[in-house]
Amino acid sequence: MTRGPLDGMKVPRFAGPATFARLPTRAEVEKVDVGILGLPYDNGVTYRPGARFGPSGIRQASRLLRPYHPGLDVSPFEPRQVADCGDVACTPFDIPQALAEIEAGVAELLATGARVVALGGDHTIALPMLRAVREQLGSPVALVHFDAHLDTWDAHFGQRYTHGSPFRRAAEEKLFDSDRSLHVGIRGPIFGPGDLAADAELGFRIIDCTQVAERGPAWTAERIRERLGEGPVYISIDIDVLDPAFAPGTGTPEAGGLSSRELLQVLRGLKGLRLASSDLVEVAPAYDHAEVTGIAAAHLVYELLGLMAAE
Amino acid sequence: MTRGPLDGMKVPRFAGPATFARLPTRAEVEKVDVGILGLPYDNGVTYRPGARFGPSGIRQASRLLRPYHPGLDVSPFEPRQVADCGDVACTPFDIPQALAEIEAGVAELLATGARVVALGGDHTIALPMLRAVREQLGSPVALVHFDAHLDTWDAHFGQRYTHGSPFRRAAEEKLFDSDRSLHVGIRGPIFGPGDLAADAELGFRIIDCTQVAERGPAWTAERIRERLGEGPVYISIDIDVLDPAFAPGTGTPEAGGLSSRELLQVLRGLKGLRLASSDLVEVAPAYDHAEVTGIAAAHLVYELLGLMAAE
Amino acid sequence: MTRGPLDGMKVPRFAGPATFARLPTRAEVEKVDVGILGLPYDNGVTYRPGARFGPSGIRQASRLLRPYHPGLDVSPFEPRQVADCGDVACTPFDIPQALAEIEAGVAELLATGARVVALGGDHTIALPMLRAVREQLGSPVALVHFDAHLDTWDAHFGQRYTHGSPFRRAAEEKLFDSDRSLHVGIRGPIFGPGDLAADAELGFRIIDCTQVAERGPAWTAERIRERLGEGPVYISIDIDVLDPAFAPGTGTPEAGGLSSRELLQVLRGLKGLRLASSDLVEVAPAYDHAEVTGIAAAHLVYELLGLMAAE
Amino acid sequence: MTRGPLDGMKVPRFAGPATFARLPTRAEVEKVDVGILGLPYDNGVTYRPGARFGPSGIRQASRLLRPYHPGLDVSPFEPRQVADCGDVACTPFDIPQALAEIEAGVAELLATGARVVALGGDHTIALPMLRAVREQLGSPVALVHFDAHLDTWDAHFGQRYTHGSPFRRAAEEKLFDSDRSLHVGIRGPIFGPGDLAADAELGFRIIDCTQVAERGPAWTAERIRERLGEGPVYISIDIDVLDPAFAPGTGTPEAGGLSSRELLQVLRGLKGLRLASSDLVEVAPAYDHAEVTGIAAAHLVYELLGLMAAE
Amino acid sequence: MTRGPLDGMKVPRFAGPATFARLPTRAEVEKVDVGILGLPYDNGVTYRPGARFGPSGIRQASRLLRPYHPGLDVSPFEPRQVADCGDVACTPFDIPQALAEIEAGVAELLATGARVVALGGDHTIALPMLRAVREQLGSPVALVHFDAHLDTWDAHFGQRYTHGSPFRRAAEEKLFDSDRSLHVGIRGPIFGPGDLAADAELGFRIIDCTQVAERGPAWTAERIRERLGEGPVYISIDIDVLDPAFAPGTGTPEAGGLSSRELLQVLRGLKGLRLASSDLVEVAPAYDHAEVTGIAAAHLVYELLGLMAAE
Amino acid sequence: MTRGPLDGMKVPRFAGPATFARLPTRAEVEKVDVGILGLPYDNGVTYRPGARFGPSGIRQASRLLRPYHPGLDVSPFEPRQVADCGDVACTPFDIPQALAEIEAGVAELLATGARVVALGGDHTIALPMLRAVREQLGSPVALVHFDAHLDTWDAHFGQRYTHGSPFRRAAEEKLFDSDRSLHVGIRGPIFGPGDLAADAELGFRIIDCTQVAERGPAWTAERIRERLGEGPVYISIDIDVLDPAFAPGTGTPEAGGLSSRELLQVLRGLKGLRLASSDLVEVAPAYDHAEVTGIAAAHLVYELLGLMAAE
Repeated sequence: MTRGPLDGMKVPRFAGPATFARLPTRAEVEKVDVGILGLPYDNGVTYRPGARFGPSGIRQASRLLRPYHPGLDVSPFEPRQVADCGDVACTPFDIPQALAEIEAGVAELLATGARVVALGGDHTIALPMLRAVREQLGSPVALVHFDAHLDTWDAHFGQRYTHGSPFRRAAEEKLFDSDRSLHVGIRGPIFGPGDLAADAELGFRIIDCTQVAERGPAWTAERIRERLGEGPVYISIDIDVLDPAFAPGTGTPEAGGLSSRELLQVLRGLKGLRLASSDLVEVAPAYDHAEVTGIAAAHLVYELLGLMAAE
Repeated sequence: MTRGPLDGMKVPRFAGPATFARLPTRAEVEKVDVGILGLPYDNGVTYRPGARFGPSGIRQASRLLRPYHPGLDVSPFEPRQVADCGDVACTPFDIPQALAEIEAGVAELLATGARVVALGGDHTIALPMLRAVREQLGSPVALVHFDAHLDTWDAHFGQRYTHGSPFRRAAEEKLFDSDRSLHVGIRGPIFGPGDLAADAELGFRIIDCTQVAERGPAWTAERIRERLGEGPVYISIDIDVLDPAFAPGTGTPEAGGLSSRELLQVLRGLKGLRLASSDLVEVAPAYDHAEVTGIAAAHLVYELLGLMAAE
Repeated sequence: MTRGPLDGMKVPRFAGPATFARLPTRAEVEKVDVGILGLPYDNGVTYRPGARFGPSGIRQASRLLRPYHPGLDVSPFEPRQVADCGDVACTPFDIPQALAEIEAGVAELLATGARVVALGGDHTIALPMLRAVREQLGSPVALVHFDAHLDTWDAHFGQRYTHGSPFRRAAEEKLFDSDRSLHVGIRGPIFGPGDLAADAELGFRIIDCTQVAERGPAWTAERIRERLGEGPVYISIDIDVLDPAFAPGTGTPEAGGLSSRELLQVLRGLKGLRLASSDLVEVAPAYDHAEVTGIAAAHLVYELLGLMAAE
Repeated sequence: MTRGPLDGMKVPRFAGPATFARLPTRAEVEKVDVGILGLPYDNGVTYRPGARFGPSGIRQASRLLRPYHPGLDVSPFEPRQVADCGDVACTPFDIPQALAEIEAGVAELLATGARVVALGGDHTIALPMLRAVREQLGSPVALVHFDAHLDTWDAHFGQRYTHGSPFRRAAEEKLFDSDRSLHVGIRGPIFGPGDLAADAELGFRIIDCTQVAERGPAWTAERIRERLGEGPVYISIDIDVLDPAFAPGTGTPEAGGLSSRELLQVLRGLKGLRLASSDLVEVAPAYDHAEVTGIAAAHLVYELLGLMAAE
Repeated sequence: MTRGPLDGMKVPRFAGPATFARLPTRAEVEKVDVGILGLPYDNGVTYRPGARFGPSGIRQASRLLRPYHPGLDVSPFEPRQVADCGDVACTPFDIPQALAEIEAGVAELLATGARVVALGGDHTIALPMLRAVREQLGSPVALVHFDAHLDTWDAHFGQRYTHGSPFRRAAEEKLFDSDRSLHVGIRGPIFGPGDLAADAELGFRIIDCTQVAERGPAWTAERIRERLGEGPVYISIDIDVLDPAFAPGTGTPEAGGLSSRELLQVLRGLKGLRLASSDLVEVAPAYDHAEVTGIAAAHLVYELLGLMAAE
Repeated sequence: MTRGPLDGMKVPRFAGPATFARLPTRAEVEKVDVGILGLPYDNGVTYRPGARFGPSGIRQASRLLRPYHPGLDVSPFEPRQVADCGDVACTPFDIPQALAEIEAGVAELLATGARVVALGGDHTIALPMLRAVREQLGSPVALVHFDAHLDTWDAHFGQRYTHGSPFRRAAEEKLFDSDRSLHVGIRGPIFGPGDLAADAELGFRIIDCTQVAERGPAWTAERIRERLGEGPVYISIDIDVLDPAFAPGTGTPEAGGLSSRELLQVLRGLKGLRLASSDLVEVAPAYDHAEVTGIAAAHLVYELLGLMAAE
């Protein structure tokens, strides 16, 4: 029998441990089916830093989550055991070492049979996540990537492992199935027209932000399902896919994004997909206000957990 | 002849009294047709407190309101006399006493023939409001309740009178017409599937947030009108029906809500209904920024006044 | 050959000069085709002051802009030379003198053959802008004005030159073509029904905020194009046309406005129009948070530059 | 018998009217001995505007003040009747007109025999205050001016009536007794060494911020008393005499200022002086946080009222 | 051997659990010598609520604390085992029930032989703390109370158990030794001169804020030691003893308080005292900025732990 | 003849370029005597990142500085030419490369005969600064280091070049004269008693924060002068030497620090010293409020410029 979050009718939600949704820790449960895992790393950022505080910020903003999801008709914290597995400790100074430490931390948890929902940290962490998932599954996953940005650039200042490049590196390493991959929510200025061509060559398809706006969440979800096909799926959510009004607390904000509601509805439309692991990244609490960003992030993680429970 | 707000062409809007929309006080008019009444009570909250500062926050944010509403083609401050009737003084320590004090304060104003637009305070205050309105009218009103939450839970920590239970208590006390009642904007995690069934047993129907998003404000307004039928209506607005981007300054924010524009348009679509009294609750200024929440609340109150003027 | 912004791959975007998009200054280029010009003037405001810090706030928030606009398929900083021409120095104390100084500063730049994208400052500055543009072109431009407010009032406290009156004065001075003029995004309370009639007498047509919401950006853009017809166009954007959730940092916020995405899409729909000059006004950074307003403003300016590049 | 503030034991301090300290309004009392008077004018500022919201900000921050002052052993709201006389309405657009309106509003209240404690507004308002006080008393008052800045500059941009010049104008108009005048708390960069000489020529003496720091509040108060001598005294407090840590919400902050405690102690050391009228200026709430500045201002006003009660 | 905080050289301080100073939890150690205990209760407040988030706010702000205290030359986390014992769950609705729950939670921990450093919550919690400590020790402790306010009022709105009355109740219940008790840091307006007399009748002596300012921390500490004499001491710190510049995040701020440095120095001067248990209360994170208040609170708790280690 | 800042009487201070104090850029002057140089690097931080925005934040907060310093009786911008030399572009990803780029950028400017006042960035930048200064002078400088922290730790996570180690590295490289070096303002928890011994072995002496508090700025300045002796001096100021109330916008805040006034007075007491170059580091604007930290930093830089002018 699984152990759920602290009961809000017995311990007020503003009290109790600062685990995600006040779930038990890994030490408090026998086996973890889904592990919430903090990856407080932000040395890959190119503009505003601070996503290192993302895991603690999202956890604090998740206190209000309740156990039943009426939209999906599931209890995301049941029947599988969800636990907060803490943070992977990694150096804030050395990029290759940090990526190795993150990959090891994720792999160790996956090796227990758990799936991981990672709380970033900046988007660099998607690379070690995908490496570990690829290793776990033995084959590439399908990939849906929600973001304002392509994140398939090559290098910044000679550094090939940044938050602007994880999906190029992952493609080069064949960590995901390039025929079953797409970006959703792309918008805003880029470096040049070549960016889009280079991205397409990696296999990505794009549903851009304008298309989501014009066609709506249901259409978007359907289109995503078509692209993802059968088999396990990795979902990577950069909180900056939301408009800065909905997610001010992030590092490279772009005007004109999705609303929280739209993104939640798109995710809800993916019910039935088989989720491998997932990440939610780029929450930078120093730029947040009244936990608006943190709350959006916590609800998106809750939605991911719901999808896992709804399979 | 009614007395309107201070003229913004004579006294700059940043100056003058801090009454709602710079309206006259009760003492300054002969008779009050519609009384703005502050209910600075927040001892019923389960998460972030601070709605006790809601009335002063909304008033300060209402300074910019102008006298004519082009959408409804009415002057909300005419022809009926609207006045700011101040705050009901109630204890911050004892829930039953506070509810009695609020009910008495509201009843006293209603007894003069006025209608009340209450500025919360937390949602607990809807109960004494409905008690007093029920008493005034001699029969139950129709009820439309805008909120992210059902607010029909039974008790928290043994306390049956909280901001999570006013509409259960009101249903038990037959304060509103259960065949003419509905929630609008419901979303987010709940405690269990039984919550919805229990709510429905009280007579409520639900237009949830997704439906508003998919069908639009006009459809929503039409559906509300059908449910409300003929006769006087009570409108209760929890500001958290809005997304946290539009209303960060509140106590139990849920991601994925309505925009201010959607809610204003829904209300506008109710033109012609006979409003009894109303409340707008759960504005917690300590979590607001640049008065975003306060301004949304002030405009919603203005919309309610417009509906009263447009009958 | 034009000189573009500092290369984000060589100088990190958080570093380097605080010019708009880190563009070269006027002194650093041979000829300016499009000049970004700060007009840090806010003595025309009626409520919250602070737009005097708008130019510096927008510049700081523009650091993240990249050189290619995929939606318009143009490089807004090419092939025409865009430069940051600094601020016009004008007195903060004397309205007529300040307007003369602004007009002179704008005219001087226009006289070099450049077009101007002005960063306000409050909306008063649209008047000297239009005066200088009228002088430059020798004939009235078409005018599309995005705003929550009409800005065709006559006078406040006897003062005829404020941020509430620029388009009345401009109409009286025949600075724009009244048959090719319209307001977009109008909403919220006004002083009386006569306001609309008086506005219409000046020749303006209105696409109000509700219409944009119900019909969408594409319809709106089409309708604007019909009204503007052939010939050069002046675009004036008051940031308060956006909802306070998207633009908290402004002086006279009104609930229920456009989203950033809607406005960007409307502008994008104007591709092909011949833009004369433009302004973006009423950004008040003291009320902003995490540069949300500044970022929206910077992207809107980028969109205007894109339209100029896409002709 | 005087009427005091609303009783905090009967109406919670977060409730009730937004008058200063929840005092009665002028209309609610028979006679005013000391009138709190808002002067929401800030068109004289040279940097950050926003002091127009000072009166409402200070009032909101004054809710917590209690009736007895143990340091002075007086009840500042007794035995004299203190009332909140609202705001003087003045144009935000025309400096001479505004100064005339302020002077008239102050003079009207003084003419009833009341003393005035003005809530600014920017420091320009000290000039019409001193004009009215000079007229009331028939002779020049002594003047003690707490400020980081001299405020005896001549003109900015040709404008001779700004927040940088009130005491030069007042000296020219012989509104105060130049042999009984001094600045306290002066610090920070100035335009040139001539500034100090020019200031001294007007008769001012200076106790600068370093002296207050080194010698302490008691020494400072004693030195002030020596300079002021016998006869009525006007106290003018610019909140920026405090360090930005204690008063972030102001327009021209200078690092290295007084603490709130030091200034309160200096004022307390002036017990027994005969206060004519006073002002507290330059509170700009848009830059405040958690009402830190407003609370300091409210306590300083309370101290002034205490001095008046302690005569 | 004791188990200390997570090593900041192995797990970055922004990562890892959100326990106080990243100490082990109670479940992770064999025996607790000093237990950090959250008391997230704020239903006793009279003005700004929000201290219910105090424990989580202080914990988050304590991440940077390092293991050695050079001022006291001790390691506060050694040789005694310090652990974070989580929060006592208590109802937010019923004052007597909550006080009983808090007392039981504290008593249970004390019964294991531990001392408690409580993180409030509002000051009401000092009463159940003192009840439990009195019970544990079998005799009254000496009491030193740092606060802007006396907190010996009798009742608010008929409620005898609020944050304004804990020390009156405690005196009535003889929970502390009235001959060895004092307030430190008192300042600001009170209700009447009788407040001081009534307080003195309970046995309290006062070192007010002005005395601390004039005589300095060393004198203050010496004076406190004289009053406390021999035997165990209870230290109760209301964060509002600090000036709002140092502690904006609190509920009833008063201008003119102590600096963080002064208070830390006073505490350091108490080295050698035998501390029973202690509390630090009234941190309200919603009003904090950049964790300024939380950091001050965390350092004060660290100082208390240092005193316990230095005995 | 030198060229000074833009004249605040001709261009309002809120307008004009965002250079430090609105000084000319390097390109605009013939020769630079003192160069303000931004070092927007923060990859050496161990807790809150964000000092990469320090240079732009300090510049924006320096707009209000006026040309004459009465305390030192000098014009810091005369007679030597002070110019804003922009930012050194350095990679945000590779620590050794970044340090090399910074050193090269500084050395290039020093090579023109200029002295540098660096705006950090995190404290790591003191190392390349000292390397370049050592190279320029041909001998080690004296060093006075204002900080809450020793910054002589060895390594974090194996990284030897962080903001916690610059002065250990500098000592190892003999960049400064260990007999003429000291820390001022040290306070707060450290890792162990060995930290102090290890620091002393490097030659440092310490005037800790308590000593400054007890003995005062004049004593402190005198003591510093004694230690520094004759010859050129390097001053390194970590803004966290100030209390978080005075400098919330920083990365590793410690309660109980200096006030801005104390630090300004200490610096003023160093008049006559021969300053080589200097740095001011660790301003993280994302955590600032109302530019309080930025203003303190700008005034400290102004003080450094004043010392250079006063030689």
